[in-house]
Amino acid sequence: MKASAVESSEISKGAPPRKGLIRGLSIMDFILRIVAAIATLGSALGMGTTRQTLPFSTQFVKFRAVFSDLPTFVFFVTSNSIVCGYLVLSLVLSFFHIVRSAAVKSRVLQVFLDTVMYGLLTTGASAATAIVYEAHYGNSNTNWFPFCRQYNRFCKQISGSLIGSFIAVVLFIILILMSAISISKH
Amino acid sequence: MKASAVESSEISKGAPPRKGLIRGLSIMDFILRIVAAIATLGSALGMGTTRQTLPFSTQFVKFRAVFSDLPTFVFFVTSNSIVCGYLVLSLVLSFFHIVRSAAVKSRVLQVFLDTVMYGLLTTGASAATAIVYEAHYGNSNTNWFPFCRQYNRFCKQISGSLIGSFIAVVLFIILILMSAISISKH
Repeated sequence: MKASAVESSEISKGAPPRKGLIRGLSIMDFILRIVAAIATLGSALGMGTTRQTLPFSTQFVKFRAVFSDLPTFVFFVTSNSIVCGYLVLSLVLSFFHIVRSAAVKSRVLQVFLDTVMYGLLTTGASAATAIVYEAHYGNSNTNWFPFCRQYNRFCKQISGSLIGSFIAVVLFIILILMSAISISKH
Repeated sequence: MKASAVESSEISKGAPPRKGLIRGLSIMDFILRIVAAIATLGSALGMGTTRQTLPFSTQFVKFRAVFSDLPTFVFFVTSNSIVCGYLVLSLVLSFFHIVRSAAVKSRVLQVFLDTVMYGLLTTGASAATAIVYEAHYGNSNTNWFPFCRQYNRFCKQISGSLIGSFIAVVLFIILILMSAISISKH
């Protein structure tokens, strides 16, 4: 445990850190980040590949629906891609925390970055959900037509691709809580 | 400093806590919570009181627009009200941290609750923003009509009421970061 010994100055002498707990949390952190990265990647790909061409047409309905018809869905794909990239990069820091369980400053940095990325992911997911809601139910007050009545398969796929994003949102809450516990145990 | 002495067992002997910094952060925390509570209250009231009656009408346009015509705006008011209530209640915990700067567990709890409320607030704000965007620009692909062309004053007020919510979102990021720093300094 040479690595831990190096940073022993950060460790209090009166209350020794619960190294086992901190290491356990760090390993859990690493695993959850991989799961969250897969979830956001799934969401980005699921939304990004959504398109449907109808075999028929009416006066008001387009023949073809692509996710990029709605700017909010483009933002959803972008935000999920950014967060996925961040999660993959953050694995380096997470691995560093498994090796050096005494590191504190880098954990504070991680909490900050996680909080920002959690916000970005939540923004993308909830904005897309608001639009998906209108797509399903429309709004008679604003004369917004629920296009899901025509584009059934399209709507199923965009609705489904939200799931991965919301799983990652919940995982981020757990990650931030675990980081706070790890910091408090030093 | 009797209060601090009680919890001195939590403090490491090797590295004494920087009480001044922690107390400063706690006072800052208290102030920012008040600002964030006012911001969310302003957003909730701003959105909740939005209504406009047009002096004229056409075949397709309603006479009257109320914020509750769109479920997302109702959710926005609800989420801002809940977060505002939480922020006011959390002042008790924040005040406790000013008095007892050595408290750690309650700070971890605060980080967790802040993270959840930050998520709720972000969800409400971004969902409402997605709808406000459609209200302003509409979407020709989905035949969604930009009703802001008629309801000018209505749209200005709903757009304006988003600002308070986004100010509070940024304040939450700062609050979580400050809590993490406070915990790390013990």
